[in-house]
Amino acid sequence: MTIQDIPARISISQPMIDAYARLSGDFNPLHVDPAIAAATPFGGTIAHGCIPMEPIFQAAQALIGKPVMPPGSTMSLRYLRPSQPGDTIHLEAQPEEVATDGARAFAFACVNQRGEKVIEGRCTIPVAP
Amino acid sequence: MTIQDIPARISISQPMIDAYARLSGDFNPLHVDPAIAAATPFGGTIAHGCIPMEPIFQAAQALIGKPVMPPGSTMSLRYLRPSQPGDTIHLEAQPEEVATDGARAFAFACVNQRGEKVIEGRCTIPVAP
Repeated sequence: MTIQDIPARISISQPMIDAYARLSGDFNPLHVDPAIAAATPFGGTIAHGCIPMEPIFQAAQALIGKPVMPPGSTMSLRYLRPSQPGDTIHLEAQPEEVATDGARAFAFACVNQRGEKVIEGRCTIPVAP
Repeated sequence: MTIQDIPARISISQPMIDAYARLSGDFNPLHVDPAIAAATPFGGTIAHGCIPMEPIFQAAQALIGKPVMPPGSTMSLRYLRPSQPGDTIHLEAQPEEVATDGARAFAFACVNQRGEKVIEGRCTIPVAP
C-alpha cells in the first residue's frame, strides 16, 4: 500500500472538541464556548491542536500496519491555520523512497475542505523491532 | 513566565483512551481492548499517539498566553516509547533565547512517572499577528 492510497481524514464537530476538552482538561472558551469564540477574530470555536493531526497518525499507522508509532519515529509539523467545527481535514501525502533498512518516510499536508493547508510536515518511521 | 515553571502534565487512563477512540474513530484493540492488548509485547493497552503530546500544547499555550498555536508554529517530535493507562506524563522544557522579533522556542521531553522520556523534540512559536 502506498501512502497516497490511504484514506485518512477527520470531520471536526463541536461535540468532538468538547470531548477533547474533557479528555485534556483544556476548556478554554475559544474551544468550548461558541458565543465567546464568535466574538473573536476566529469567528467561532477552534479545535485543539492535535485534532487536525489525527489523519497523520491514521496514515502512518495504516502504512506500517501497526497502531503505534515505533520508537524512533519522528514527525515535524508546521501549523498554518486553525481548524473549526464543520471542517473536514484530509491528508495529502508524498512518499519518499523506502530506505535500505525498510524505514519509511513521507511528506504531508493536512488539508481542509476549502483546499487550505492547515498543517504541513514530514514523518519518518523506522522498521519496528 | 518561563517554560520551566509551567505545570504541564496529563494522567492517562483507559476511559481517556476510550474517549479518544470515539473522537478519532481509532478503535484498534491495542488501544481499547485490555484483554487482547495484555497478550501483546506491550502487556496492556497503549494511548493514541497524540495523548502524551498534550503537555506540549499546554506549555506552549501557557507560554504565549493564547489557546492556539499561531500560524507558523513548528513542532518536531521523536517518539521514544508508548504510554499506557496509569502513566502520568509531564513536560520538561528548556527555553531558548527569545528571538529579536519575540519568537519563542523550547526544547522539550515528555517524561513519564518512571523518568523515562516518551517523546522529545522542539517547538518554535512566532509572534502572533
